[in-house]
Amino acid sequence: MIRVAIVGATGYTAAESLNILLHHPQARITYLTALPEECGPIEEVFPQLRGRIDLPVEPLDLDKARELADVVFCCLPHTVSMDYVPQLLDAGLRVIDFSADYRLASPTDYQQWYNHEHRDPGNLSRAVYGLCELFTAKIPGTDLLANPGCYPTGAVLGIAPLLSAGLADPDDVIVNAATGISGAGRKASLLHHFPERNETFEAYAVGTHRHQIEIQRVLEQLAGRSVNVLFVPHLVPMERGILSTIYLRPAADVTEPRALDALVSIYETAPFVRVGNALPSTRYVARTNLCDITVRLVGGRLIVITAIDNLIKGASGQAVQNMNLMFGLKQTMGLL
Amino acid sequence: MIRVAIVGATGYTAAESLNILLHHPQARITYLTALPEECGPIEEVFPQLRGRIDLPVEPLDLDKARELADVVFCCLPHTVSMDYVPQLLDAGLRVIDFSADYRLASPTDYQQWYNHEHRDPGNLSRAVYGLCELFTAKIPGTDLLANPGCYPTGAVLGIAPLLSAGLADPDDVIVNAATGISGAGRKASLLHHFPERNETFEAYAVGTHRHQIEIQRVLEQLAGRSVNVLFVPHLVPMERGILSTIYLRPAADVTEPRALDALVSIYETAPFVRVGNALPSTRYVARTNLCDITVRLVGGRLIVITAIDNLIKGASGQAVQNMNLMFGLKQTMGLL
Amino acid sequence: MIRVAIVGATGYTAAESLNILLHHPQARITYLTALPEECGPIEEVFPQLRGRIDLPVEPLDLDKARELADVVFCCLPHTVSMDYVPQLLDAGLRVIDFSADYRLASPTDYQQWYNHEHRDPGNLSRAVYGLCELFTAKIPGTDLLANPGCYPTGAVLGIAPLLSAGLADPDDVIVNAATGISGAGRKASLLHHFPERNETFEAYAVGTHRHQIEIQRVLEQLAGRSVNVLFVPHLVPMERGILSTIYLRPAADVTEPRALDALVSIYETAPFVRVGNALPSTRYVARTNLCDITVRLVGGRLIVITAIDNLIKGASGQAVQNMNLMFGLKQTMGLL
Amino acid sequence: MIRVAIVGATGYTAAESLNILLHHPQARITYLTALPEECGPIEEVFPQLRGRIDLPVEPLDLDKARELADVVFCCLPHTVSMDYVPQLLDAGLRVIDFSADYRLASPTDYQQWYNHEHRDPGNLSRAVYGLCELFTAKIPGTDLLANPGCYPTGAVLGIAPLLSAGLADPDDVIVNAATGISGAGRKASLLHHFPERNETFEAYAVGTHRHQIEIQRVLEQLAGRSVNVLFVPHLVPMERGILSTIYLRPAADVTEPRALDALVSIYETAPFVRVGNALPSTRYVARTNLCDITVRLVGGRLIVITAIDNLIKGASGQAVQNMNLMFGLKQTMGLL
Repeated sequence: MIRVAIVGATGYTAAESLNILLHHPQARITYLTALPEECGPIEEVFPQLRGRIDLPVEPLDLDKARELADVVFCCLPHTVSMDYVPQLLDAGLRVIDFSADYRLASPTDYQQWYNHEHRDPGNLSRAVYGLCELFTAKIPGTDLLANPGCYPTGAVLGIAPLLSAGLADPDDVIVNAATGISGAGRKASLLHHFPERNETFEAYAVGTHRHQIEIQRVLEQLAGRSVNVLFVPHLVPMERGILSTIYLRPAADVTEPRALDALVSIYETAPFVRVGNALPSTRYVARTNLCDITVRLVGGRLIVITAIDNLIKGASGQAVQNMNLMFGLKQTMGLL
Repeated sequence: MIRVAIVGATGYTAAESLNILLHHPQARITYLTALPEECGPIEEVFPQLRGRIDLPVEPLDLDKARELADVVFCCLPHTVSMDYVPQLLDAGLRVIDFSADYRLASPTDYQQWYNHEHRDPGNLSRAVYGLCELFTAKIPGTDLLANPGCYPTGAVLGIAPLLSAGLADPDDVIVNAATGISGAGRKASLLHHFPERNETFEAYAVGTHRHQIEIQRVLEQLAGRSVNVLFVPHLVPMERGILSTIYLRPAADVTEPRALDALVSIYETAPFVRVGNALPSTRYVARTNLCDITVRLVGGRLIVITAIDNLIKGASGQAVQNMNLMFGLKQTMGLL
Repeated sequence: MIRVAIVGATGYTAAESLNILLHHPQARITYLTALPEECGPIEEVFPQLRGRIDLPVEPLDLDKARELADVVFCCLPHTVSMDYVPQLLDAGLRVIDFSADYRLASPTDYQQWYNHEHRDPGNLSRAVYGLCELFTAKIPGTDLLANPGCYPTGAVLGIAPLLSAGLADPDDVIVNAATGISGAGRKASLLHHFPERNETFEAYAVGTHRHQIEIQRVLEQLAGRSVNVLFVPHLVPMERGILSTIYLRPAADVTEPRALDALVSIYETAPFVRVGNALPSTRYVARTNLCDITVRLVGGRLIVITAIDNLIKGASGQAVQNMNLMFGLKQTMGLL
Repeated sequence: MIRVAIVGATGYTAAESLNILLHHPQARITYLTALPEECGPIEEVFPQLRGRIDLPVEPLDLDKARELADVVFCCLPHTVSMDYVPQLLDAGLRVIDFSADYRLASPTDYQQWYNHEHRDPGNLSRAVYGLCELFTAKIPGTDLLANPGCYPTGAVLGIAPLLSAGLADPDDVIVNAATGISGAGRKASLLHHFPERNETFEAYAVGTHRHQIEIQRVLEQLAGRSVNVLFVPHLVPMERGILSTIYLRPAADVTEPRALDALVSIYETAPFVRVGNALPSTRYVARTNLCDITVRLVGGRLIVITAIDNLIKGASGQAVQNMNLMFGLKQTMGLL
């Protein structure tokens, strides 16, 4: 039985992690922490959990964490996480970090895109990027797992196989994506106040969203060469889900069936990726760890479309999938 | 041309007032004020108004208000409004107050339900309650108009005619109402954060909502006797609209046609009230100053159902209707 | 391992049943049927199930059903179900019927409220009403289980304990309820076309909804006397959930704590009912088999509020709970 | 006073036209027609219009149309419209056609994209494409106005000025657009049944949507050369609004300010187009005839974003704007 602590237990990814882990046959939630002002009974934070788990949310105590847990789901925001992760590692805990702090290998990239100096560069090389389907081999051995961003998960799963197969031009990648509002986190703001956010659709952070560099760097690592990515995210008035509509320039002799085959063959043994002809919809992957993918060749473009649940495959579900791999369990355990 | 100032110009009722007044043939918006930290170009507050009005939002200056305006739409919150209204009146301005501060005749009721001592009791008797259809005669002469609450508007328009006609028991009035989320105002909170508020339905403030005493007192004033009201509001995941489902105990020999007639005859000349057999829906009154009403007699109960737009007939539209009446214009001007 | 057939496998309750049963450790879905024109791969009916189950939807063949299944989830509409249930029973299958055809003990009630003569009155006495928490003892032995309606589940769970304890007047019960739109089923209509149904709230079938007689008869059976129920349903622009706001007239000396105690003590051992002080919200029971309940005493009324997921506790979840009880399993199996 | 008939008065564009025309100072609705089975009081078709207009919906009678109207809003579906338009023109009526039947100059394009032979090719050359801002000069004189499609309106208004100014490559135009569900019309279907359509986001008709050829041909006409367009539409769970996110390849020395200037200068005198730095949102143009536009230069791409209300600027509002131009009125009349 894996004992799991959740550090930063009051956000949406913590809530989803709790919900999944409560159904996991080989995991037990043993410790929940948050900032002092957010502590209290978990059912006051998440009323849906009333009667389903009987743990308080407490301020983090490293000794207690070490004693109670084997692995920590670190659900802290970026720039905060890198202050806690080294301590958790020093305490002998394995860490699955939900923030962006260990996703970029280069402190320079981090500095440039997150406007903060990286305060734990030493652990960057130790971190494994946990996009399970594409970095499978590295995950079991790590004790510092950087859980991928939601947008990068949906984008990279769709693009990487086509770049790897040489079917598309790495210099011309456009990712047009749209997310449900839970992607913005659980902190209230006028921007996401219901009467403002409902019944509207808009782009934001055009070409400046921090996930752009994450998508680019991961693709570069997989392709072994430079990749040029333009990323434009949008907000959809719904709770969850990300649809990525990706525009690629096909190599000379690419056909639609060949592109589809490249995706099928890469994900043949991936239990959570469904490649097919149908156009994906966020509805059909909502509240699952699945990623639906299709590809079209029209108007001289390869259009790859992927759908995930931003909170599950894009966060907590993938974290559990990573935990399963790290602890030698079947990767689908608790997730199908 | 009526010159209108809006004090407290950054909330939803101000936005709706602006939108209506921009189409009003006999009114001109001349002055917009807010707290210093909220001031700036109106198009930064409400981007939908870009290019449609060219006024800054400024801190309130009484001299300027006096000079620029004939009437003030006072869109301040309760307990704040009563500090400004006396000054505006002293400056010779006519005031339409959107807050609850002048709706209850008794300072004791105010103290009990709003948990604040009333700081301007002297003006309470001067204030006219602006439920246009039922207090029509008093409105033209007033310079202090208390614009009714959104729930009271929908509830009282449905109940009062039946109590007045002696068709229902004043001691047993249940108002089960549901509102769109703009009713909660424009201040962000976790409660109305999109991912929390979307896709859910719930009751709140059961029997303790401040509009309960307003409904009760207005009905008592109209009926000339005590009335017992139980009010239970609910939140609907939509932007606007209030549906009131009202349960009354019928007098001995009431029939459904007789109840419907009582409503029809009271509202025969009311341009904004549509009495009919069809069940009202908030959709059909959204973005209008209309109130749809029907009544059923089933299971030994009179069930009155009314629908309004909480921001229009329940706030800004009714304010303009009141302005029209106060200034001797046709009450429908700018509203149909 | 219980082998489950689903007859009428193309509606929302079938989809939910499939989703639950796929996670049930002691059940296996073995046979799916529908009308000939709706047959085909299940993933074409419900794309979310792609890769998760590999069964076709076929026209019903009784011999095949008998051979492949132990129990049938009969998800046919009312008036259709009563033509199939006798045949399924004759084939030796146990039946959990989702329609209203076996919920009312009296064929006269059925004729009056459903406008159809009952064509299988002989089996009415054999049928057990499967409101698990209140008819627990009768369920294990039956082979014809009438799965309760969604509204009756939410209403009766809240009302029955207070009537049984003599705390409220059975002659004056008002159930004001609101449902998500999946309650209307999966057949497209202008009424529930997205642009018509979104952003609106309305009452329907005021005092004439068929669930009114179901609520009344079940309460009468539990209370051992006549009960007078007025039922007014509403439509909420959301996918799922029912909130019931119930108005009762309290007996002379009732206090709020005493009313709450009556609920607590009845549901002390019920794993899916959460009685508490907090006001229920459909959000916190969505996609679970839970029912949240609270009670208030205000304005001379007992107000009971209950929340369920109409598709889970109000349909498919309760069906699985019933199946568990019928087959001697823990009632929570596959549901928590 | 312009007398307006609406042929095909039961769809969403008819409802919007009615709503606008009821507020138009120089227009009067005089005649409403529909298929025989859809006829009846207009308030039964659109309950929101109860008490606001007193016209029945009748089967079309050409003599009556000729007698009662000066102009016809022809709101029939494509392939139907071309059977009625010649008769209406022959009857001496001016026609504003909402369908696609007169938008494409070439019958071959029509045949290819609409899968129907064009049955009125003779009138194609007579028709003027009514994208008011870009074809202003041709509109006043016409008696057959092809009202533009919703997607083409949003897309062309953003792209044309940049192509005309030589700032972008006409061979590489990607239009990624998203629409509210009213864009699918008022006919119920499972696809847009509320519980299916709510809370989901998806692409459809990738590279095959009929508006792709309309966008391409209009851009070609304006640019005087061939243009290559890839169009990918998406569905947003909201009632109305279209956001177009357009990816262009910039000419060698283009800067962001220069691109913005090109837009500003083209629309300097256009009362409904707002060019600015802010990212457009469908919320801020909803229920208006406005089009918001901005442009960014990032990652080697010009990204133009436009927002319109699909039913207003994308249909009925633009139709009234065209009517104003055709009849020598100020183009903003009834629309601002």
